[in-house]
Amino acid sequence: MEQREHPDMSNTPVTVLGLGDMGTALARALLKAGFRTTVWNRTAAKAEALVPEGALHAATVAEAVEASPLVVVCLLDYDSVHGTLAPVAASLAGKAVANLTSGTPRQAREMAAWAADQGADYLDGGIMAVPPMIATPAAFVLYSGSREVFDTHRAALDALARSEYLGEDAALAPLHDIALLSGMYGMFAGILHAYALIRSEDIKAADFAPMLGGWLNAMAGAAAGFAEQIDSGDYAQGVVSNLAMQAAAYDHLLEAAEEQGVSPELLAPLGPLMARRVADGHGHEDLSGLVELLRTRP
Amino acid sequence: MEQREHPDMSNTPVTVLGLGDMGTALARALLKAGFRTTVWNRTAAKAEALVPEGALHAATVAEAVEASPLVVVCLLDYDSVHGTLAPVAASLAGKAVANLTSGTPRQAREMAAWAADQGADYLDGGIMAVPPMIATPAAFVLYSGSREVFDTHRAALDALARSEYLGEDAALAPLHDIALLSGMYGMFAGILHAYALIRSEDIKAADFAPMLGGWLNAMAGAAAGFAEQIDSGDYAQGVVSNLAMQAAAYDHLLEAAEEQGVSPELLAPLGPLMARRVADGHGHEDLSGLVELLRTRP
Repeated sequence: MEQREHPDMSNTPVTVLGLGDMGTALARALLKAGFRTTVWNRTAAKAEALVPEGALHAATVAEAVEASPLVVVCLLDYDSVHGTLAPVAASLAGKAVANLTSGTPRQAREMAAWAADQGADYLDGGIMAVPPMIATPAAFVLYSGSREVFDTHRAALDALARSEYLGEDAALAPLHDIALLSGMYGMFAGILHAYALIRSEDIKAADFAPMLGGWLNAMAGAAAGFAEQIDSGDYAQGVVSNLAMQAAAYDHLLEAAEEQGVSPELLAPLGPLMARRVADGHGHEDLSGLVELLRTRP
Repeated sequence: MEQREHPDMSNTPVTVLGLGDMGTALARALLKAGFRTTVWNRTAAKAEALVPEGALHAATVAEAVEASPLVVVCLLDYDSVHGTLAPVAASLAGKAVANLTSGTPRQAREMAAWAADQGADYLDGGIMAVPPMIATPAAFVLYSGSREVFDTHRAALDALARSEYLGEDAALAPLHDIALLSGMYGMFAGILHAYALIRSEDIKAADFAPMLGGWLNAMAGAAAGFAEQIDSGDYAQGVVSNLAMQAAAYDHLLEAAEEQGVSPELLAPLGPLMARRVADGHGHEDLSGLVELLRTRP
């Protein structure tokens, strides 16, 4: 890639629109890192609260957008983003907009197109952290969209969290964001079911937690093998415990839960999917082939 | 605990009943570790195949049980175990039976009671490995039941895998076994959903795998916090992202999947459970409170 010269934006002014728990954490991180930070919020009290920490309180969205070349947006949802930015569309030309509001890939693409129409450079971001984690090593933000915005304003973005750029398609950040969160919630569902089983015999969950944590960490390693099978479409490649065997054992796993007085509802949907895949002639393959059944479009 | 003297059983004869893939792997591990190993299988060919490796092939179950003080059982299910051992019940007195057949806590308790009636010492085991992992550092076996059997025959058990003893109640090993497997399948469901999302944009699963693996490892750390909340019953303790917020975001997560042409079916059941818990007045608490809703007995 061509090396480009960037102006020194290491201390560029930054505007933050939206001061919920997350927006407030972002503004604080920028203030602590020494950025001239202008804030705006629909209800002014939250903006006013940051003034003692050095924030400049903009009375209107227009004033806030005017104040800085980089506008970080962190609102409730994309409807709020559009509702906030549309009235000041004319002032967005030449601005860099980093939208860290949670949304879907489709919403990010639509927002990127709209921003382009206003002459703004658009970067979409997915924050992989809860507010208290902002500006700690555990937090990271996935970015996609304008590489120019990402490179030019990297210092400000890095003040928020570790920054990872995924590509020019604005949809990539929310896509990866929802994929990671989905994986996490699947794991959490498994953890809740496991604890319910353990508690059914009055064993302390804390006594079981280290074993469960170590086991999940070890088994997460299977994700890499699944990926190879999925990319190649060869779901029989390197199979150890085939789907037919797993499907039979899975039924017993859920029956055992019911015996223990634990509802199998969180884990139930995997069973019929396994059975369908086996019935379709894929019993000799690995579990990873179930991704084929999750696609609702050809 | 009282220190007891054990006879030197470091090279005790061992019998293995059942030579499926797992039973064969167990017998091989014992042979490699230098144990005098007698094998029996319903279809004799699998036993005969191990003779060149040093196994003694018992023609009948009675002969196999007679051959060794420790009888390792690895059959298809508990019905097979009962069907195999019941005809030789009289010869079990004084024997140590280590049953590594997969089953439920209830089945383990029933088998322990039956074995006690025959005068046998019973140890139940849950193998946390697939056959190729036996006798590698990645494998472990959870044991519960007779501590005497576990201590006396520890050398033989350690030849199979890392051995972990959980307590005198024979149900503990299968309980922990199914809890770990359930946690794993929840995580796998999340992983499959995540890959389906990533593939919906023609991104390689292998390009996403390292990020997903690292994220799941980091998020598995939440299991320890859930355990504390569950043990104390104080689900609001240390909450960062409360259930009401998570429930709202979760709906969007599943909607985003549908937009991407990915069926949300694997992750769907968590949504209504969250909503029920919020409706019950627990919206300020953490996700861990859902265990309360998984209990089907008071």
